[in-house]
Amino acid sequence: MGRKTSPMNNTSCIVTLFMIVLCASNVFVCRGEWEPTWSTKAAEEAEAVAAIACSGHGRAYLDGLILKGMKKPVCECNACYGGSDCSKLLSDCAADAGSGDPYFLEPFWMQRAASSAILVSGWHRMGYTYSDGTFISELLVQYIKRLHATVGNAITEGKYIIFGSGSTQLLNAAVYGLSPNASMSPAKVVATAPYFPVYRTQTQFFNSRDFSYEGDTSLWKNKTDKNSLFIEFVTSPNNPDGKLTKGILHGSNVKTIHDRAYYWPHFTAIPSPADDDLMLYTISKLTGHAGTRFGWAIIKDKAVYDKMLTYIEMNTMGVSREAQLRALKVLDVALEGDGKQIFQFAYSTLRDRWIRLKETISKTKRFSLQNLSSQYCTFFKRERDPSPAYAWLKCERKEDKNCYKILEAAGINGREGSLYSAEDRYVRLSLIRSQDDFEILISKLKVLVAKD
Amino acid sequence: MGRKTSPMNNTSCIVTLFMIVLCASNVFVCRGEWEPTWSTKAAEEAEAVAAIACSGHGRAYLDGLILKGMKKPVCECNACYGGSDCSKLLSDCAADAGSGDPYFLEPFWMQRAASSAILVSGWHRMGYTYSDGTFISELLVQYIKRLHATVGNAITEGKYIIFGSGSTQLLNAAVYGLSPNASMSPAKVVATAPYFPVYRTQTQFFNSRDFSYEGDTSLWKNKTDKNSLFIEFVTSPNNPDGKLTKGILHGSNVKTIHDRAYYWPHFTAIPSPADDDLMLYTISKLTGHAGTRFGWAIIKDKAVYDKMLTYIEMNTMGVSREAQLRALKVLDVALEGDGKQIFQFAYSTLRDRWIRLKETISKTKRFSLQNLSSQYCTFFKRERDPSPAYAWLKCERKEDKNCYKILEAAGINGREGSLYSAEDRYVRLSLIRSQDDFEILISKLKVLVAKD
Repeated sequence: MGRKTSPMNNTSCIVTLFMIVLCASNVFVCRGEWEPTWSTKAAEEAEAVAAIACSGHGRAYLDGLILKGMKKPVCECNACYGGSDCSKLLSDCAADAGSGDPYFLEPFWMQRAASSAILVSGWHRMGYTYSDGTFISELLVQYIKRLHATVGNAITEGKYIIFGSGSTQLLNAAVYGLSPNASMSPAKVVATAPYFPVYRTQTQFFNSRDFSYEGDTSLWKNKTDKNSLFIEFVTSPNNPDGKLTKGILHGSNVKTIHDRAYYWPHFTAIPSPADDDLMLYTISKLTGHAGTRFGWAIIKDKAVYDKMLTYIEMNTMGVSREAQLRALKVLDVALEGDGKQIFQFAYSTLRDRWIRLKETISKTKRFSLQNLSSQYCTFFKRERDPSPAYAWLKCERKEDKNCYKILEAAGINGREGSLYSAEDRYVRLSLIRSQDDFEILISKLKVLVAKD
Repeated sequence: MGRKTSPMNNTSCIVTLFMIVLCASNVFVCRGEWEPTWSTKAAEEAEAVAAIACSGHGRAYLDGLILKGMKKPVCECNACYGGSDCSKLLSDCAADAGSGDPYFLEPFWMQRAASSAILVSGWHRMGYTYSDGTFISELLVQYIKRLHATVGNAITEGKYIIFGSGSTQLLNAAVYGLSPNASMSPAKVVATAPYFPVYRTQTQFFNSRDFSYEGDTSLWKNKTDKNSLFIEFVTSPNNPDGKLTKGILHGSNVKTIHDRAYYWPHFTAIPSPADDDLMLYTISKLTGHAGTRFGWAIIKDKAVYDKMLTYIEMNTMGVSREAQLRALKVLDVALEGDGKQIFQFAYSTLRDRWIRLKETISKTKRFSLQNLSSQYCTFFKRERDPSPAYAWLKCERKEDKNCYKILEAAGINGREGSLYSAEDRYVRLSLIRSQDDFEILISKLKVLVAKD
């Protein structure tokens, strides 16, 4: 398998001829007294796994097959596909429009197999720190700054950058970082519905003496008593509805955490670079590598940066070196050429999905979608159409109070509005999953709409 | 670089000849109309980096060189070595015996370059979960159970296993997991000096309403009032002194977190498999991959397991897939053959270091080391000599109250006893760092002892 049977291009032919000359002329070289080519086994394992097609409806992974030492390849099939090679379309299978698994970007990486692969040696970065004594790859910081400069979605000059195991870890690190010391009363953490539920659940779960979750921002508008500190979560574009939002609370005792996970040309126009005091970004929604668990915070205030660094050290002693290496590699590919390819791919994919969804929903008055309009994008340097990560679907009929159940009955699994502290008249449908998931979603919706 | 200039063994010559025949006989193949061998670039990058020797006193890394697109290789030199190729021994350079960077295992992995390498494709595991919907690789769980069965250092049957970003994350997850719900008074977290400082600093930093750090265990012996829950940290073998320890508090309101990071045949005899209710292990001190940030907890109680799972989900949404893949690969190598090689390598390295250190210190009455004796090891099936991860050095002279300063003046940087809640008459010296660090430590100690 692998190299032996692999086809060759002209370059490798020249290499081959060169090697042959070596062999013919220098028997010594061919007796293997020198180190063997140690990367061959890993390369062959990876190519053997990648060669398993799974009918285009599943995936075989390195940690699902070769290491298991199994005779037969194992395909992990997409939802609604089965069989050893994922060729079987399962009947009566519900559409999964639940989680934000960003598989819509997987084809981009498969098209760039050679440039996006990494070979990790057994002795790669075994220690606790990089050579500068930190947990943060300085090279990766440089790549992140270059990317923001290229995209124009964040001002990094004169700011500090730290890493987290996904922005998930950074959300709580930021709350700790902005909270007052024990002498003051606990900070009041708030967010505006509909909002990403983790802001609430995480703050409540860690149950710190330094802060507590105090409900919807609207409860505190013009009521931010000077005696306590407020920490407002602002997500822009917003999850679930994709709207570009702004903070509601203002004043010297109000701190804001700007979750910028979706502030990329995939999902929204970029009117101008974000220049907030505390901004969170994640690779999950940028390159689609959610499993890598890598995010970063861009922080203006040194004291907040220092406290967040302490949080990350106390919590996990930094972010996995393998995750940082992978992030470096995928950002390296994202920055290739004019640095527009990944954004063009992602935007056109999501734009097409949004158009098809809108067209499907337009056939009925029973359902509606959030209203998003075209806007000028400083990155694409033109008006761009909406291409949100999620549909925020509303059941319009008075009696359809539980929209989730209505969709569920039609074989569509989304997420209840109440999860986002909104009415259950709303459902979030994920549009960033695999093409298979999206096609099944559309076909189920067409049937539902036709029934109307 | 890489393949072009790489030497070949007989097998690759046969492969080469086979390729040549292909080229000669089939021009079509050589025009590159077929997919190229996509792993070649990554393999060549990795081999080019690995080929940089750095004089044996440093290391070049993939994320230090190729991705940076630099013309010249960059060596990251070991402490006290400098120059572009790390060949220059720096004068007046202090010995670093501080952190527990486990570089003593690096040679083991360099000797197993082929079997320990992984090639990660650009589309490897992009989603949030594995195909079973969890954040935990079931295959890796199986490997961990096999390893514990092989070593005989933990009973895993009938217990639950969860992963963390190093045992660091699991320490706090365990405290949350064992803490009572809000209705009860906060749990009292305690540890016995000398102890690993993170138990205290982490518990204090997160400042939860559910628990608080309440000092040394000895303060509470026979005083564990039934009204509050106690959480005792027990590290065995202990960091810093390498002693096999047991819990001190007992009773229905006492829960114990057994930190088993050092319970491997490298560091101690294995008298019997550990069978505690909550045990923490980490790959850092097992294979030396501290930078990977991977640890696991073995948990008996389902309710504790569930709460710890929630903690990991709320905190980081599981552990990086790259970290789990790396852990799987290195455990796969560790389990090769009779599964004894890594332990034999690690034990003999640390045993030799301990013998040399004891011999050096034996030349004076000014300093002493912790007293460790040979003990029967069920893994090696024989008496084994001591081979601790750290020396717990004591300054014996009445006036030498600050042992750290005395060593520092002699060009030896350890860690103050007070960090471990002990007297500053003690210093921890790390014995698990690179051979370079150990050699410099010994030479500095010899000079200091000779002065006596």
